[in-house]
Amino acid sequence: MSFSPLINNLIESLRCLPGVGPKSAQRMAMHILEHDRARGTTLAQALAEAIDKVGQCDTCRTLTEQPRCDICSNAKRDERLLCVVEQPSDVIAVEQSGTYRGRYFVLMGHLSPIDGVGPEQLGIPQLLVRLQEGGTEELIIATNPTVEGEATAYYIAEQAKPLDVSVSRIAHGVPLGGDLDLVDMGTLAHAFKGRTKFS
Amino acid sequence: MSFSPLINNLIESLRCLPGVGPKSAQRMAMHILEHDRARGTTLAQALAEAIDKVGQCDTCRTLTEQPRCDICSNAKRDERLLCVVEQPSDVIAVEQSGTYRGRYFVLMGHLSPIDGVGPEQLGIPQLLVRLQEGGTEELIIATNPTVEGEATAYYIAEQAKPLDVSVSRIAHGVPLGGDLDLVDMGTLAHAFKGRTKFS
Repeated sequence: MSFSPLINNLIESLRCLPGVGPKSAQRMAMHILEHDRARGTTLAQALAEAIDKVGQCDTCRTLTEQPRCDICSNAKRDERLLCVVEQPSDVIAVEQSGTYRGRYFVLMGHLSPIDGVGPEQLGIPQLLVRLQEGGTEELIIATNPTVEGEATAYYIAEQAKPLDVSVSRIAHGVPLGGDLDLVDMGTLAHAFKGRTKFS
Repeated sequence: MSFSPLINNLIESLRCLPGVGPKSAQRMAMHILEHDRARGTTLAQALAEAIDKVGQCDTCRTLTEQPRCDICSNAKRDERLLCVVEQPSDVIAVEQSGTYRGRYFVLMGHLSPIDGVGPEQLGIPQLLVRLQEGGTEELIIATNPTVEGEATAYYIAEQAKPLDVSVSRIAHGVPLGGDLDLVDMGTLAHAFKGRTKFS
């Protein structure tokens, strides 16, 4: 026994959303059909329009519906700094920190040979061409502090070595507001290795 | 700083789903745009179609795209039993328990004068007409064991009193597999009051 075909179809389709299991999908479908059809229609349209029109920025590869994203077309950004991140949401996170005013390059993933993701898929040749064209003084690699993120960072650093650009990696250590005894050993080891002098 | 307008619009629209906050909405939008556009399109279509076509069953008021739902049009169901529930998902829950073979009546809510939900909005006049037409021997009230559900159950029972139909309420007590010391006091009080003799 289950709902009518169209409702079942909606419940099943909602499960493509990450973190949505059978119970939440059912709750979402019921909520929309019982209480919120207008916003459900808006969602259907927003989804269809974004899927249809959002592509990648020609320059930095982030997701945008324009040929060039806002940051890449902003003449006030510092051309000398280029920050490499894995995802478009990482760009937003760095922007929200408010400390960085340079440019970005978005890999849209990390090296993962087992999934068929190599340098080509991450646009690394495009990144190297951009570095060769000059103008970039420092390449800041801000991939995630995971095994894959570290491997990707290492690969990019190696590839950029022969070029006339300084390559750096963002610091890993104890997060602000974190309790020292709740931080994992790897992070703590990083925090000690990367210690800086009081000035 | 944020995503491009279409992506922001999608993130904002996803928040109409219950339990979806800003972070999950962002994760969902990114997941669909980066990895799952085909299923995203399917979701947009399923949503639009369900919103467009799903209405209520003429007989029991549950959500369905047909004029009459599967249970109401099934001649094998026991006409003598009528179970009143709050939501279409309650019908599914009762069906999955596998013990009930009668008909349903779905209130699509509970009495809540503060929200403007009175007997009319819950179809209670329609329910009483159905009981007056005869054929129903027992009315089983299975509204939720909440204050509003109990008030709704009491109201329906009062209304059905003058009619030639036996009215019952599903049992409240300790759930199967539950630990006695984890059950709240109200439920435990109900379980004692509703105790039955070993036969």
